[in-house]
Amino acid sequence: MRKVRIGIIGAGRIGKLHAENLVRNGQVQIAGIADPFAAQMEEWAAKLGISKVISEPLELIQDPEVDAIFICSPTTTHAQLIIEAAKAKKHIFCEKPVSFDPEQTREALRVVEAAGVKFQTGFNRRFDRNFKHVAQAIRAGKIGDTHIVKITSRDPDAPPKPYILHSGGLFMDMSIHDFDMARYLTGAEVEEVYVQGAVLVDPVFEECGDIDTALVTLKFSNGALGVIDNSRRAVYGYDQRVEVFGSGGAISVQNEFPNSAELMTSEGIYRDKPHYFFLDRYNQAYVEETNEFIECILEDKPVAVNGYDGLAAELIARACDKSYRERRPVKLSEL
Amino acid sequence: MRKVRIGIIGAGRIGKLHAENLVRNGQVQIAGIADPFAAQMEEWAAKLGISKVISEPLELIQDPEVDAIFICSPTTTHAQLIIEAAKAKKHIFCEKPVSFDPEQTREALRVVEAAGVKFQTGFNRRFDRNFKHVAQAIRAGKIGDTHIVKITSRDPDAPPKPYILHSGGLFMDMSIHDFDMARYLTGAEVEEVYVQGAVLVDPVFEECGDIDTALVTLKFSNGALGVIDNSRRAVYGYDQRVEVFGSGGAISVQNEFPNSAELMTSEGIYRDKPHYFFLDRYNQAYVEETNEFIECILEDKPVAVNGYDGLAAELIARACDKSYRERRPVKLSEL
Amino acid sequence: MRKVRIGIIGAGRIGKLHAENLVRNGQVQIAGIADPFAAQMEEWAAKLGISKVISEPLELIQDPEVDAIFICSPTTTHAQLIIEAAKAKKHIFCEKPVSFDPEQTREALRVVEAAGVKFQTGFNRRFDRNFKHVAQAIRAGKIGDTHIVKITSRDPDAPPKPYILHSGGLFMDMSIHDFDMARYLTGAEVEEVYVQGAVLVDPVFEECGDIDTALVTLKFSNGALGVIDNSRRAVYGYDQRVEVFGSGGAISVQNEFPNSAELMTSEGIYRDKPHYFFLDRYNQAYVEETNEFIECILEDKPVAVNGYDGLAAELIARACDKSYRERRPVKLSEL
Amino acid sequence: MRKVRIGIIGAGRIGKLHAENLVRNGQVQIAGIADPFAAQMEEWAAKLGISKVISEPLELIQDPEVDAIFICSPTTTHAQLIIEAAKAKKHIFCEKPVSFDPEQTREALRVVEAAGVKFQTGFNRRFDRNFKHVAQAIRAGKIGDTHIVKITSRDPDAPPKPYILHSGGLFMDMSIHDFDMARYLTGAEVEEVYVQGAVLVDPVFEECGDIDTALVTLKFSNGALGVIDNSRRAVYGYDQRVEVFGSGGAISVQNEFPNSAELMTSEGIYRDKPHYFFLDRYNQAYVEETNEFIECILEDKPVAVNGYDGLAAELIARACDKSYRERRPVKLSEL
Repeated sequence: MRKVRIGIIGAGRIGKLHAENLVRNGQVQIAGIADPFAAQMEEWAAKLGISKVISEPLELIQDPEVDAIFICSPTTTHAQLIIEAAKAKKHIFCEKPVSFDPEQTREALRVVEAAGVKFQTGFNRRFDRNFKHVAQAIRAGKIGDTHIVKITSRDPDAPPKPYILHSGGLFMDMSIHDFDMARYLTGAEVEEVYVQGAVLVDPVFEECGDIDTALVTLKFSNGALGVIDNSRRAVYGYDQRVEVFGSGGAISVQNEFPNSAELMTSEGIYRDKPHYFFLDRYNQAYVEETNEFIECILEDKPVAVNGYDGLAAELIARACDKSYRERRPVKLSEL
Repeated sequence: MRKVRIGIIGAGRIGKLHAENLVRNGQVQIAGIADPFAAQMEEWAAKLGISKVISEPLELIQDPEVDAIFICSPTTTHAQLIIEAAKAKKHIFCEKPVSFDPEQTREALRVVEAAGVKFQTGFNRRFDRNFKHVAQAIRAGKIGDTHIVKITSRDPDAPPKPYILHSGGLFMDMSIHDFDMARYLTGAEVEEVYVQGAVLVDPVFEECGDIDTALVTLKFSNGALGVIDNSRRAVYGYDQRVEVFGSGGAISVQNEFPNSAELMTSEGIYRDKPHYFFLDRYNQAYVEETNEFIECILEDKPVAVNGYDGLAAELIARACDKSYRERRPVKLSEL
Repeated sequence: MRKVRIGIIGAGRIGKLHAENLVRNGQVQIAGIADPFAAQMEEWAAKLGISKVISEPLELIQDPEVDAIFICSPTTTHAQLIIEAAKAKKHIFCEKPVSFDPEQTREALRVVEAAGVKFQTGFNRRFDRNFKHVAQAIRAGKIGDTHIVKITSRDPDAPPKPYILHSGGLFMDMSIHDFDMARYLTGAEVEEVYVQGAVLVDPVFEECGDIDTALVTLKFSNGALGVIDNSRRAVYGYDQRVEVFGSGGAISVQNEFPNSAELMTSEGIYRDKPHYFFLDRYNQAYVEETNEFIECILEDKPVAVNGYDGLAAELIARACDKSYRERRPVKLSEL
Repeated sequence: MRKVRIGIIGAGRIGKLHAENLVRNGQVQIAGIADPFAAQMEEWAAKLGISKVISEPLELIQDPEVDAIFICSPTTTHAQLIIEAAKAKKHIFCEKPVSFDPEQTREALRVVEAAGVKFQTGFNRRFDRNFKHVAQAIRAGKIGDTHIVKITSRDPDAPPKPYILHSGGLFMDMSIHDFDMARYLTGAEVEEVYVQGAVLVDPVFEECGDIDTALVTLKFSNGALGVIDNSRRAVYGYDQRVEVFGSGGAISVQNEFPNSAELMTSEGIYRDKPHYFFLDRYNQAYVEETNEFIECILEDKPVAVNGYDGLAAELIARACDKSYRERRPVKLSEL
């Protein structure tokens, strides 16, 4: 049985997660890991049975024993690594966003296309059982024509200042997942955005020239309207829900919980909070996402979320930045 | 427009409740109230526009200006009052239980039948929107043949000792509603019972020769099985739910709540407790129950819950007492 | 015991509803009803025990046997009737909107103020047990500082064309309740709005120069952000929910249902739709609203929703119209 | 890093499931599989990287390269295999029931004890996140003293006749999990049972001398009461819920679902059925159960569910059989 040989670039939180999921896929062999802090990764890698841990990503990219590259390094490095990997004819899985600059993303995707390799963007939420179910129900006509999309997406707590400074801002770092979700659920393009944003959670966001709370309204190519609400701090945990309303009905999904227990006492009725953050909430979605990528390589099928999906979300983020700065609705066609 | 002229015997908690509901029914006139503590009732009665408040029930029963009698006095007085009212050709609404002694109940019902007057037993829960919906769904075949009936019925707190002593015991006082519910939901008769009972809430029940916690299993004439669980103290409030399982599915209903608010904080997710007790929970059911009785009189229709329903529930209570004492299953046919 | 003597102007759907609720209030006497189709109202009025049914509203307003006026006639007649009633020193309950023209509303409220009479605007939703609970929880600090308010408000079906033509448009007719809700929940003023609107439900709205679907984003004086989503047709029934998110948590309330039954079959799990429309959903809120008004008169307390609340909501509606036409965010201070 | 070397006896549905879970545990090596139909297992085993597939269980038991044995063969073979494995000083994981005959179980456990090896019974439900949470909440005093335990346990469909004939009957085959759950949740022993049973699902159960529907009431050593309701066919899927009521409150858990989507249409509100059967519902619990067993071996800790837990559940099943046949409550001390 043929195995896909994977090289992973960047072994931070998300790179490690992918590695741990990939070792459980019977059709995968992890050929090596490249990370600037290679020495510190060795013990962790050994436990997974990965012996090659190097600091130089190009070495991994050019290794003939590698079929595909997972790009999990900082966003600013993505475009160049994509170009190198594509030239080396490796399939590519790239974390979001593809880059902070749509022009760079376009350039990288041109090389990918010329090389004819697979390219999947790390929009893991498309693989969540609930959101997938909603998208399928909409495609199956269960709610008729889509009129209104509502996406709730709130993090449990604000990241530290250094993260904020290099995050690309709320829209590029956090809402980008919601922009992809909006496109995924509607199957339509976003044509116009309007942002109301504020710093309500922590003044550190203002210091960083960023915001922490936003309402983004969207106008879609199929006539539907949408709204995303984001906050950097929901004290009750990661809040990730969608509701889609249409001519034939509405469909909504809830958060995921560690248990379904309901405790009734003289004080009231309690249940535990939803999962704390994405590693818990999207645990299984991350597994599905990588398994799907491997299957697409092995069966030569188109990937579920390609580079243009990544680009489209970046363009929406860009339009949101402009709308927030200029305090007016912005059409994507203006960019 | 003709009005039904009502005499109410007994103006305790439940008699007052019926009076207050009846004054809102446009087809009712309250002709008078009889209560041993008549003098103390006058202010309350005046507010409702009731001027006749007397201490002697027979005077009310024999009043030619009275069409129907509500019997809300202590259970030990019911049978005699029913007989007098029936002989006076008054329609009768009687609180549960009809009597503590099935033989007395039978005797009273014989007089009622001979007199040809309406007789409704105060099983208010049949008029609850949720339980009514379940019964209708079952009749409509939504769950196929009934296999298992589960009734949860827990009071929010134990009554005081004097109440317990004159209550007739857990089965006759409290579970009797559940016995009627079991018959109502299944449309079948209870043929056999088995009781597991205990004093777990408060030793006062033992002092009174009573129990405070029970599991009653039932065998129905249509082959279905049932279980009722009772407690005299659910610290989170009145717990009144049913679940019916059958060959084609299952149907269940929940408690009623003062609001549907869900509060999510760093401590968890919270909602308010269900309604505290029967006056809140069955508020509307009590209205429906009296309105239905009035309608049955005006339109000469059979009542929804008649005296034989009252008798049937008393017999089940009697069988449960026997089962608990003799620690064995008891057939209703043994009584 | 003193009774408040009420004159009702306009006996359409809502006027009749108020009359039927008022007759159940023991401290009210309905002195008369004025409606252009008086003759057709007599039978209905007689059933409620109301003998005076006239066609001329001024006669009722000037009747010395009347303490307070309910204005339930078409919106275009409100301002003039308010002025007449205030001059006649009658307390006033006026249906929403007070008028279609904020200037007219201001003028009417000036006369009311000069006359020193009570004036309550018919924002019934403030009396809904769920929304009231949310407002109280927020006031009590349960969710900390408010960051995001989300209001879902969808009608079950589009009104007929003649209604649409005289409705004042989506914002003045339908969303106006949501504007009041937004102010009620936050305890803050709306400072800026942005509208994304569309005709997605029925082209008849376009023919009438109106829209049927809208996302309204709001910016509040306390820094919070808000979004209202409106549709003229939710095929599953009246959809009325709110969710408020803050620094300390979030609180949300659900629709109201005719029952809580859950039916599980081989096809899935079903429950009945929420209440069909406002008469069912807000049944009890309408009772509370009128009872509260009567109590404010009898105890000389300030009303819960006054004329300036009515005016504030009209101004938001006006700003929304402007935002929709000019396709840009509009500050209330621009009006 | 030391690995536990496992031999699996019996590669039917459950043996395969354990094998597939064990290969994902980094501290396990599957040394071999013994199944009478070894030849048919080879392809499946090869995919898991297991090369040794034999037909003779004793060969596996006596293999010095094996540390622990999973007994997944038919129940009638368990006792003898346990004895052999214990004598060979292998740790043992044994599927439920340990045997159909408590005396045989006792005998096997005596040998296990003498050998000093670990023995875990396959009561997977103790590892379900929801039931575990309930047990922990009870231990933590969240509901005070336990008064009433209610366990709902219904299979989605009846097994085929040959399975029924060799199943040991409803109590030994199916309810045995619920007997263990009852002990697990209460932390108490069952002292008395009473069964109401019936054939309502399919006459094939009568042909096999078995029943398909039962209500089992339990009396616990701590005074609590319990009821289990079982059906062999719930058309809406596997129904596995518990509710525990006590002096300080109540706690309940729901089924698990493939998604949380709620679809609202003009027909009502719909959600998908719960998971179909145990492989879906307890998917993760099976993983936890085997991981825990491995951990107990590696860290020399006592197992979470030992052989005496298996025996206790068998004795309850035996008492239930007797109660059903003799139509009376049966004390465990009578056995």
